[in-house]
Amino acid sequence: MMSIFGDESMLMAMLEFESALATAESRCEVFDPRIAETISDCCQISEFSISDLSELAVQHGTVVVPLVKQLTKLVSVKDETASGWVHFGATSQDVIDTAMIIQIKKACALLENDINRLVSALESLESRFGSQVMIGRTLLQPSVPITFGQKISGWKSAINRNWKRTEVSAKEALVLQFGGPSGNLSSLGLQGEQVRKTLSRIIDLPLPTDAWHVHRDRLVSLCSCISILVGSLGKMALDLSLLMQSEVGEVSEGNNSDGGRSSAMPHKRNPVNCLIALTAAKRTPHLQATLLEAMVQEHERALGGWQAEWLTVPAIFEAAAGSISAIADMCGGLQIHPEKMLHNLDALKGLFMSERIMLALSKKIGKESAREILEEACSKVQSQDRHLSELLKLDARFTQQISSDELDELMNIKGYLGTSSIGD
Amino acid sequence: MMSIFGDESMLMAMLEFESALATAESRCEVFDPRIAETISDCCQISEFSISDLSELAVQHGTVVVPLVKQLTKLVSVKDETASGWVHFGATSQDVIDTAMIIQIKKACALLENDINRLVSALESLESRFGSQVMIGRTLLQPSVPITFGQKISGWKSAINRNWKRTEVSAKEALVLQFGGPSGNLSSLGLQGEQVRKTLSRIIDLPLPTDAWHVHRDRLVSLCSCISILVGSLGKMALDLSLLMQSEVGEVSEGNNSDGGRSSAMPHKRNPVNCLIALTAAKRTPHLQATLLEAMVQEHERALGGWQAEWLTVPAIFEAAAGSISAIADMCGGLQIHPEKMLHNLDALKGLFMSERIMLALSKKIGKESAREILEEACSKVQSQDRHLSELLKLDARFTQQISSDELDELMNIKGYLGTSSIGD
Amino acid sequence: MMSIFGDESMLMAMLEFESALATAESRCEVFDPRIAETISDCCQISEFSISDLSELAVQHGTVVVPLVKQLTKLVSVKDETASGWVHFGATSQDVIDTAMIIQIKKACALLENDINRLVSALESLESRFGSQVMIGRTLLQPSVPITFGQKISGWKSAINRNWKRTEVSAKEALVLQFGGPSGNLSSLGLQGEQVRKTLSRIIDLPLPTDAWHVHRDRLVSLCSCISILVGSLGKMALDLSLLMQSEVGEVSEGNNSDGGRSSAMPHKRNPVNCLIALTAAKRTPHLQATLLEAMVQEHERALGGWQAEWLTVPAIFEAAAGSISAIADMCGGLQIHPEKMLHNLDALKGLFMSERIMLALSKKIGKESAREILEEACSKVQSQDRHLSELLKLDARFTQQISSDELDELMNIKGYLGTSSIGD
Amino acid sequence: MMSIFGDESMLMAMLEFESALATAESRCEVFDPRIAETISDCCQISEFSISDLSELAVQHGTVVVPLVKQLTKLVSVKDETASGWVHFGATSQDVIDTAMIIQIKKACALLENDINRLVSALESLESRFGSQVMIGRTLLQPSVPITFGQKISGWKSAINRNWKRTEVSAKEALVLQFGGPSGNLSSLGLQGEQVRKTLSRIIDLPLPTDAWHVHRDRLVSLCSCISILVGSLGKMALDLSLLMQSEVGEVSEGNNSDGGRSSAMPHKRNPVNCLIALTAAKRTPHLQATLLEAMVQEHERALGGWQAEWLTVPAIFEAAAGSISAIADMCGGLQIHPEKMLHNLDALKGLFMSERIMLALSKKIGKESAREILEEACSKVQSQDRHLSELLKLDARFTQQISSDELDELMNIKGYLGTSSIGD
Repeated sequence: MMSIFGDESMLMAMLEFESALATAESRCEVFDPRIAETISDCCQISEFSISDLSELAVQHGTVVVPLVKQLTKLVSVKDETASGWVHFGATSQDVIDTAMIIQIKKACALLENDINRLVSALESLESRFGSQVMIGRTLLQPSVPITFGQKISGWKSAINRNWKRTEVSAKEALVLQFGGPSGNLSSLGLQGEQVRKTLSRIIDLPLPTDAWHVHRDRLVSLCSCISILVGSLGKMALDLSLLMQSEVGEVSEGNNSDGGRSSAMPHKRNPVNCLIALTAAKRTPHLQATLLEAMVQEHERALGGWQAEWLTVPAIFEAAAGSISAIADMCGGLQIHPEKMLHNLDALKGLFMSERIMLALSKKIGKESAREILEEACSKVQSQDRHLSELLKLDARFTQQISSDELDELMNIKGYLGTSSIGD
Repeated sequence: MMSIFGDESMLMAMLEFESALATAESRCEVFDPRIAETISDCCQISEFSISDLSELAVQHGTVVVPLVKQLTKLVSVKDETASGWVHFGATSQDVIDTAMIIQIKKACALLENDINRLVSALESLESRFGSQVMIGRTLLQPSVPITFGQKISGWKSAINRNWKRTEVSAKEALVLQFGGPSGNLSSLGLQGEQVRKTLSRIIDLPLPTDAWHVHRDRLVSLCSCISILVGSLGKMALDLSLLMQSEVGEVSEGNNSDGGRSSAMPHKRNPVNCLIALTAAKRTPHLQATLLEAMVQEHERALGGWQAEWLTVPAIFEAAAGSISAIADMCGGLQIHPEKMLHNLDALKGLFMSERIMLALSKKIGKESAREILEEACSKVQSQDRHLSELLKLDARFTQQISSDELDELMNIKGYLGTSSIGD
Repeated sequence: MMSIFGDESMLMAMLEFESALATAESRCEVFDPRIAETISDCCQISEFSISDLSELAVQHGTVVVPLVKQLTKLVSVKDETASGWVHFGATSQDVIDTAMIIQIKKACALLENDINRLVSALESLESRFGSQVMIGRTLLQPSVPITFGQKISGWKSAINRNWKRTEVSAKEALVLQFGGPSGNLSSLGLQGEQVRKTLSRIIDLPLPTDAWHVHRDRLVSLCSCISILVGSLGKMALDLSLLMQSEVGEVSEGNNSDGGRSSAMPHKRNPVNCLIALTAAKRTPHLQATLLEAMVQEHERALGGWQAEWLTVPAIFEAAAGSISAIADMCGGLQIHPEKMLHNLDALKGLFMSERIMLALSKKIGKESAREILEEACSKVQSQDRHLSELLKLDARFTQQISSDELDELMNIKGYLGTSSIGD
Repeated sequence: MMSIFGDESMLMAMLEFESALATAESRCEVFDPRIAETISDCCQISEFSISDLSELAVQHGTVVVPLVKQLTKLVSVKDETASGWVHFGATSQDVIDTAMIIQIKKACALLENDINRLVSALESLESRFGSQVMIGRTLLQPSVPITFGQKISGWKSAINRNWKRTEVSAKEALVLQFGGPSGNLSSLGLQGEQVRKTLSRIIDLPLPTDAWHVHRDRLVSLCSCISILVGSLGKMALDLSLLMQSEVGEVSEGNNSDGGRSSAMPHKRNPVNCLIALTAAKRTPHLQATLLEAMVQEHERALGGWQAEWLTVPAIFEAAAGSISAIADMCGGLQIHPEKMLHNLDALKGLFMSERIMLALSKKIGKESAREILEEACSKVQSQDRHLSELLKLDARFTQQISSDELDELMNIKGYLGTSSIGD
């Protein structure tokens, strides 16, 4: 992903634009095909120095001015008049935006691979451990039992929804940018529309209704999908890192590599993959906010707003790529510890059944009385270190309503998994 | 919009949930229909004190605990055992999320009205002033001429795209929340699915595959669409406020009201509608980032992440409502000053034609020589305060290539409007 | 805190400004003292309707226009010519900014109380449990032992630093705003400086060099201090909520109240105070970013940037107030479970000593060999469920270098607490 | 600035830490001075491959693990036992944080140079054009006249305040990080404090009370100062870019370079320096928010929060460096057009005096009547294109109160500059 958005591939994409533009214009008879050939021949990355261009870019506020200058120089050596047709009718932003879209298109393909890998890993975990019972946790406190399958299914559905949304958004956003200085292709006169269409076919990017120099909603919407995906991955990473705490110990990262060792402590394995996904999830919301903020752009082309995208869009895709890949790696090798899941349930001494028992009791003596009896018993579970069942069986108010057998039945987790047991 | 997300309508929506839940459960034979009737009868907003609930909400971290307590009390007065079935199988988040979705549904309908009003206003402007020529501006400097219609069309397309995106997103996001303490409706056993379906029909919100207590991607995606819309409106407001500067003066707000007067200066009319839209556009990116950040939620229900949404989601919709309404108002009464548009063009003394002339010249003497001649002439336009035509006609290097008549033809704006002239 | 920034106290502070302004101007002989008295007499909150003003504020883009209009009307009833001197020389922003500063000053005093309460609570915990040994945790994995005192001391130092920084910043930021329409008090001519000084004394707010209508650095800097404080409190809340997990159980919230009960589960106590602080910490970074973004304001007074502060500054102070108060409450009643701290250490079977033992061994056989032996032993601790000591005593490579007694000494936690043991 | 935070200087700073640590420990007699010499000898950047380290860093979640491994290898070749003392007692974060502080220290020195350059440029402008009268603008509309000096003075004061705040903050934040795995230097036992002090002297960074692995308030506070500075610079850039609009034309960038030329339009000079500063001001609020968000770090060392700083802190300093340098460059060569300032005033036909005249009239006939007369006249100024004076002199209600001579005196701008005229 770093290389997709690297200086070199950016330069290649910009030269691809300039070359395709010349070809399209010659096909529309704006100029002679031989001119287009000369220009295309000069669009060779080896003829350009990335470091020189970078330096000049700062001075000009855009890399396109020095790039076009250099390209013009190369062309004019071969054919003086052809040089007049270099970059004809285009503006800097046409080049940069289209190049960025070319890069994003590649980036999306890369992400898709890892999304597929991740979904497969989750499906495999689901089929192996889906019915495993564990405690549900809400507000970081024990709630009621769930299956591990419910957790995995929630993660997987979110990833699938996110990717579907990304695909729809990519279809809308991955379009050609070509409008000339003020968006109306003034220099091309009545040929503008035809050149746009031809260029769109050559570069293989659909044609939007208008130039979108200052209307960034499609791009921002695509980046939003990616940012939301990073958020969903962050949620997975948070869940897993909490389950990996030594006191919880319900899952652990596979030991197949050296990754995560500490520089000081031989016993330590840091959850590096979670770390990557969590770091990404802390950065992307702010990167996305930068894009949203930068939408407020002046007139036909912006002063500052557009430029703020240059570092931000690649950063979002890089963060996403790191996150998906890390989570896919982790899920591929994840070790599940069912015995620890059961142990953690046991250690709660039946407390997680308090809602179920209260509801059963409520039907007989009303909710407030039932709640009182249950709250009393629950507080004794911890202070006296005894099982909730045991304590309830000692409470006459309870035993008058619910028999010992009924209580044992209520205490059976299998009957208390609701929708997460469906499919067993 | 403020009232849609106000305390009272929130409370009404929460009571709607509790009432519908009881009805759904009785229809699924979880309990007797008379119990459901008793509960529904008690779900009257007049029986609840908003200020008491607000105070208790802080203590409990949620308004649902005191709400359910009060509802239970009301029910138990009428029927002690019925009280055991209040809120049966639900968790706080089911109530709050569903109530919020009910509010958002209303909010979207409200926004749609103003969107339609705005699009109509833009279409009217387009039909009246669409072919008006004006200077295009890029990086806050004069670029090449455009039509006002091009500007309006860009705004309108963006609004239309944004709203279409919002509708698709709303369809995905406006779904029921009902999962119980850990998302699996544990207390309802095998009846869970059926109750969910029935509740979905009663509340008239589609059913998602799973509870989405900690999977907020759909909601965040909808809010993202709204935030992007606010960005597009901010862009319009920025354009218009720049055009309204006294030195530019190409448009002005209609004087049909008292709005925008200064507390000190009688001559002053502040662009209040632009102000509202620009303020919204400065706030929403950060509100949206809050939602993105808050997606990283723990396990089955979150500690902090979900709660951060409570003030944030309404704030996004309120900002959007204010912005759309202000921009629709403004566009409805916008005054266009074609004479000022022409004046501003004239004041540039032909400079905006430099690209066209350079391209014409380039074809004859190559780009670098052409650029040199044009840059020299352009710099003289300002230092000598003379028209570009006049200066070029004095330059032998130029007149040898391009005749006076050809130059006059090149200087004709009508032939230099590219795609924005189409439709004339 | 909500009431400090409520509509009523905002209105009171604005009227305080208008009254003080009249008084200051009359003292500087801009007009007759009787005029000032008449104006001041009319600055009674009872004469104004908050709901009417709010409605008109939307239309005007500021509440000051309708406020001044109503005040002028009240004054002109008493004295027609006096009405000419209402709000004399001031602009809307003078009124709103100064009123906001008056509110912030009160807010800071309120925060200080809770800061003191929190620091006391931490000192009390430190004196009672400061030397308690517990496992240190890094990247959510066990690291080496620390004392609970080290943890508390880190929290306390951060709170103290944050508050000190806030005080310095408040001294800079809590200044009068008074500049008139364009910041130079044009209407007051040469009397401007003197009126400023007098007004500053009456309102008891120091005088900055210039009007700061569009230079918001001082205010943003103060809000930054508050936001950073909220971040430090969020860190405390995260630590505590992690320690409160049932599987960790090293601390718990005091049971002195009803707070934190679940709407569904009788056994549950939600960490409501942590929740409040964590929610605040998720919101403030974005609120602060809004202020930073909004600093880029146009010319002499802004279009949108300033207005974006109105909802944002109070929100930061309200979030901070909620967070500090919640954390102070929680620390005041926090229950510490030393036995659980020791239990969690024991459960690690000596693993946390791996660094120390490796370093001891490294000195004899070099680091790489030592690391290899230790990593091997550490991995067996978990797979074989045996203590690290026991395993090392079985490894000849180890016992040749370090005797059993030496190992026992190395395993003594007391000698391995570094700087956190100082003070014992 | 890019090179200060580049990979190479980061690596150099990390090796500086490792070398200084060995020296400090040997001075405190933790081990033999010859061991320290061996370790220091190996801390040569030429022995390390940046690309190899980068690759391994991803796998380990930190660059320090592979760095220490490589350093250990180099040392063990020279002296097997010395290798046991490499990185002794330190943790990854000690190395990275201290290296970052070393980089920030250099960055601050660099910024200071440009701040001084900028302040000098502003002082020069102030002395040359400080008393130049121009229109003040509020909410992007003409307000009352000001001097250009008032504008410059506001910018300069803000820059000075910002830098003073940065210096105070830097003093607090630029401190050593050294705490070992859990912050208490466990491995160094009672020698910890002494080693810390010695290391602090060698690296020339003051010693904080505690390790600040998870207490980032000082660093975030320093970055906040830088972000606020970028905001103030953004405000300058916005003002200047608005003044540079061709219709306003009150200032322009010096033509001493090729910078800002368009890739398409020979007449165009883009305000590249404004662009750089505005782009920075759009990015930093979000970078700063990332740091604020990331303050909520777990226990003794964080999972994700700390790592989110790595790309963010350098980005803030780089944005700031670009912005200051661009604004200093621009102000150094700024061209001021006093004739255009006067022209823009004239074009307003006296409107900007409406407040003054209304106040004068108010004293005679009350505010509401005065406002009515003035508003009527002001609206005619635009519709009839006549001067405010002229219109008022035709209004009997006005001429009865204020004579023609008095009006002419009121219309004199010189007497209406308030505090901005002081110093003339």
